[in-house]
Amino acid sequence: MICVLRLGHRIERDKRLSTHCGLVARAFGAQKLVYTGQKDSGLEESINSVTNGWGGPFQIEHSESARKLIKDWKGKSIHLTVYGIPVQEKIRTLRKVRNLLIVIGGEKVPPEVYQDCDWNISISQQPHSEVGALAVFLHEYFRGRELEKKFRKAQKRVVPQERGKKVVGQTP
Amino acid sequence: MICVLRLGHRIERDKRLSTHCGLVARAFGAQKLVYTGQKDSGLEESINSVTNGWGGPFQIEHSESARKLIKDWKGKSIHLTVYGIPVQEKIRTLRKVRNLLIVIGGEKVPPEVYQDCDWNISISQQPHSEVGALAVFLHEYFRGRELEKKFRKAQKRVVPQERGKKVVGQTP
Repeated sequence: MICVLRLGHRIERDKRLSTHCGLVARAFGAQKLVYTGQKDSGLEESINSVTNGWGGPFQIEHSESARKLIKDWKGKSIHLTVYGIPVQEKIRTLRKVRNLLIVIGGEKVPPEVYQDCDWNISISQQPHSEVGALAVFLHEYFRGRELEKKFRKAQKRVVPQERGKKVVGQTP
Repeated sequence: MICVLRLGHRIERDKRLSTHCGLVARAFGAQKLVYTGQKDSGLEESINSVTNGWGGPFQIEHSESARKLIKDWKGKSIHLTVYGIPVQEKIRTLRKVRNLLIVIGGEKVPPEVYQDCDWNISISQQPHSEVGALAVFLHEYFRGRELEKKFRKAQKRVVPQERGKKVVGQTP
């Protein structure tokens, strides 16, 4: 089980970025997005709508406490942060972890997250994006095999084309 | 020269996502972000501020015409789209291209972009994020070496830590 924990969602400001976090989590092989901050039914509907159309399994849920989730997690947890240890130094160890919780910010990450997670991991030592960091981390974790992942109960799927768009299955 | 072309920026709706596109472009080894749509001095300042603090070279500029930019590009161009050919099938060819223009949407991508670019490339056949797609593409293109990239004229840099934050150099 790979679960992504998105910290401190704010409906107004983060709706689209949190949606991208959820879609990247799903597309790159995680099974779940948990988010803290403001509960947002619009965010949940956006993600569930993609899972309904393009397949799963993938879940999204809100949590009141990141700290409890991290402490109660049955497995290992990492926090993706520019300040952490370079992913290329730890990825061999991390690939052996089966139940992995991946924590991503959030504008302001509470200091205890740095302490509570098993590892703080950086995807480059440059400021960029939790969406980009999550995508590259999962791509490294799965060694690129996630790009071939089959999704269950998909109502539609893309057939790759040199030009234009081809989708087979039910188009709503 | 690797240049990213972000299509159809809208100030209100896309500010943060376009900022993430620019930061990912810079952090993962591109030299430039060009964007079409609404000219946005706030977006440009956000990106330039990161480049000033963390180093470059990296530029951002607005363009009136994506089509002209793609047609006039001296090199090859790709369009990242869920409908394209899987990146894992084309990456060996693409790594040989030195001057690469990488086009990313945008809510609605005009049909001519699919025609004008040399290749349409998908990062998985699942809907996710232009930020995630750009990060993984550049990570594949540079084979992970971008994670070690040194930036010029950086006023500060991160020193990786197991816990907490360490930045050396001028902190504003």
